[in-house]
Amino acid sequence: MKSADLRIDIDRLERRLAELAAIGAIEGTEGCARLALTTEDRLGRDLVVTWMRDLGLEVSIDGIGNVTAVMPSDGMPGDGMPTDGQPPVMTGSHIDTVATGGRYDGNLGVLAGLEVIETVIGAGIELDRPLAVAFFTDEEGARFQPDMLGSLVYVGGMPLEHALEIEGIDGARVGEELAAIGYAGGAPLPGHVPHAFVELHIEQGPVLEAEGVTVGAVEGVQGISWQEVTVTGQSNHAGTTPMHLRKDPGVVAVKCAAFVRELALELGHPQVGTVGRLELRPNLVNVVPATATFTVDLRNTDEAVLAKAEQAFHDFATTAAADEGCTISFESLARFEPVAFDQSLVGLVESVASELGHSVMRMPSGAGHDAQMLSRVCPTSMIFTPSVNGLSHNPAEYTAPSDLEAGANVLLHTMLRLAKEGSSND
Amino acid sequence: MKSADLRIDIDRLERRLAELAAIGAIEGTEGCARLALTTEDRLGRDLVVTWMRDLGLEVSIDGIGNVTAVMPSDGMPGDGMPTDGQPPVMTGSHIDTVATGGRYDGNLGVLAGLEVIETVIGAGIELDRPLAVAFFTDEEGARFQPDMLGSLVYVGGMPLEHALEIEGIDGARVGEELAAIGYAGGAPLPGHVPHAFVELHIEQGPVLEAEGVTVGAVEGVQGISWQEVTVTGQSNHAGTTPMHLRKDPGVVAVKCAAFVRELALELGHPQVGTVGRLELRPNLVNVVPATATFTVDLRNTDEAVLAKAEQAFHDFATTAAADEGCTISFESLARFEPVAFDQSLVGLVESVASELGHSVMRMPSGAGHDAQMLSRVCPTSMIFTPSVNGLSHNPAEYTAPSDLEAGANVLLHTMLRLAKEGSSND
Repeated sequence: MKSADLRIDIDRLERRLAELAAIGAIEGTEGCARLALTTEDRLGRDLVVTWMRDLGLEVSIDGIGNVTAVMPSDGMPGDGMPTDGQPPVMTGSHIDTVATGGRYDGNLGVLAGLEVIETVIGAGIELDRPLAVAFFTDEEGARFQPDMLGSLVYVGGMPLEHALEIEGIDGARVGEELAAIGYAGGAPLPGHVPHAFVELHIEQGPVLEAEGVTVGAVEGVQGISWQEVTVTGQSNHAGTTPMHLRKDPGVVAVKCAAFVRELALELGHPQVGTVGRLELRPNLVNVVPATATFTVDLRNTDEAVLAKAEQAFHDFATTAAADEGCTISFESLARFEPVAFDQSLVGLVESVASELGHSVMRMPSGAGHDAQMLSRVCPTSMIFTPSVNGLSHNPAEYTAPSDLEAGANVLLHTMLRLAKEGSSND
Repeated sequence: MKSADLRIDIDRLERRLAELAAIGAIEGTEGCARLALTTEDRLGRDLVVTWMRDLGLEVSIDGIGNVTAVMPSDGMPGDGMPTDGQPPVMTGSHIDTVATGGRYDGNLGVLAGLEVIETVIGAGIELDRPLAVAFFTDEEGARFQPDMLGSLVYVGGMPLEHALEIEGIDGARVGEELAAIGYAGGAPLPGHVPHAFVELHIEQGPVLEAEGVTVGAVEGVQGISWQEVTVTGQSNHAGTTPMHLRKDPGVVAVKCAAFVRELALELGHPQVGTVGRLELRPNLVNVVPATATFTVDLRNTDEAVLAKAEQAFHDFATTAAADEGCTISFESLARFEPVAFDQSLVGLVESVASELGHSVMRMPSGAGHDAQMLSRVCPTSMIFTPSVNGLSHNPAEYTAPSDLEAGANVLLHTMLRLAKEGSSND
């Protein structure tokens, strides 16, 4: 069989997605809840590791609980990475979910990676470089902050001993919980550097569906700026206080929130800006508020434009508060610079998708992914498949089987190309 | 003694304010909590009724628990109102408070009325018409809706049997609670119509303090329009949803709230407009909201301008929602037309204040008061004294003794003039 004709088995992939989703299933929905390092996470891990071992893969677990499975070959020792052979072409994602998770977010990338490897093994295709699939600990950050914790530690972005001390929302510590579920492994950290990393993930947004496109060739991850803004004024009776005597922090907040929309439109795509949280105190119909607190979420793939957006917002808000006689303070909740994926790898995803007959578009990722951590150490890109109604972090998260199949086949052939680079074609 | 030289006793007035405030006192503050028809209200009522009887006044209690005390004179029967003599010049207010009440709101008007009568009796001045002081049940509406319930029933605005069936926030009924505290009386309802009604009250706003004026001659009560607006859009991921694909109800809400400020400024004084409550759902930093709910409080002394403001808001909000692809609904929470007080009585308050050497200004009331109910049946006006920092419904509510004294003396001489109208001067 020519490897160009190779296709993944969508039924097998769907069966595995369903079987994994049954662990921590949210009753009455298609979704599931497997917060990182809980019993549900352990049961999910055990199932995926069983599948990895059933395929004869070399499974290794590192100190933060990341699990890597590599196709066996000469010179591949038991720690999951070759020392005297070729570094593998790696794929992977995560299997932890948010509390109201769907069955595709993360899980698709891991199980499609497994499916790709099973397809290649089944076809008996020889590769110059082995394939590997990994799942990283606590990508969601729903129980332990920061998110993408496992992949961050994998690439050396945080010392292990620091990560193990992180306390979760329930007071539990990463190190203790890892030990409790039996996933504190001995594989080296930082982890072995792959030849390349490609992650398949659902888009978690509405763009592919709106554009009627099947495959996204992800160029990078947007930079993220989260701020919490607090405006303090003078609470007063809404009936007895003339307008000119007011210091209304609510007015400042709503002007700022309206400005965020204007700013995003003015800077243009791919700039986005959102005020998702806004609270007035005391929040009563007939009382001019004493304080207003709101968040600003600004994202762009271009660091310079993102910084410009932050500055423009800061200037506007400062002036608006002063004009109203209010005080204002800004607190950064999160700040990540944009990540640019490897241009030739993005191009490879794009051309593989086209060759397979799928519509494809280049796009940024609006959310964070393990791939952005791997991109610190090796050529990286991502493949997106459409999310119906853009829904994610929601039990109603859904991607059509034909789209799952397309995405997994693009992953298969992207990995095949990378694993045969520099070798003669079959 | 010439009645023109008569002055109230500020020390006696302050002592009574303090003694009444001790009932239901909020520990560690100057404030008190005497919700209508509670045990604290009964104790407050008992104290004030004792003071009324100590002065030799004829005390009557009607079926909704309003208490009226009239100076005894020929032709004054025991039901508290003359049948064959002159109708009295009445003052009064309320002694119920909100849960976080101050010691002046309402109480001042009742105890200053008592002080005026004690001063007149003490000076032995003869009047053509008797003076009366009343306190009305449940002015605050903090336990039983609507507010100004007692005065509403007094003037025939609601049948007694209807009022007695009203259920409070704690499930208690007005009729049962009145009986339980012993204040379901037998005086006729609707109540006797006074010759005139003048109410002294703290401003509960910052205008007098800001203008440096001691006395407000209240021209009327603002009309009030309260609406709750709900905007529904499409919740989405704040990172992955491009601006042009959003239906963000939060954006609609903040544009509407900003418009309320613009509208109030454009319509000019005395129009006020407030968005005091605003809630986003799910209210998360990285989620475009699914719904936004907010209130709009519009007030004006001119019904036509108030209606114009409501229409302009409705038009703006409807268009803003449509532009964003959101649905919008409007619910009226309250709607009262403006009340205009008797022009000659407003003028009398103004001239009496000037003659007594106090700075005075005409102004509307931004809040509702029992006087607006009495104005349905007799010439009515109000006297305002300054509220420090505009605070009210707050234990920190405060009016300086010199301002209390000025307000009570203006009440005294306004009532004296009204009680001597058409008679020869002394």
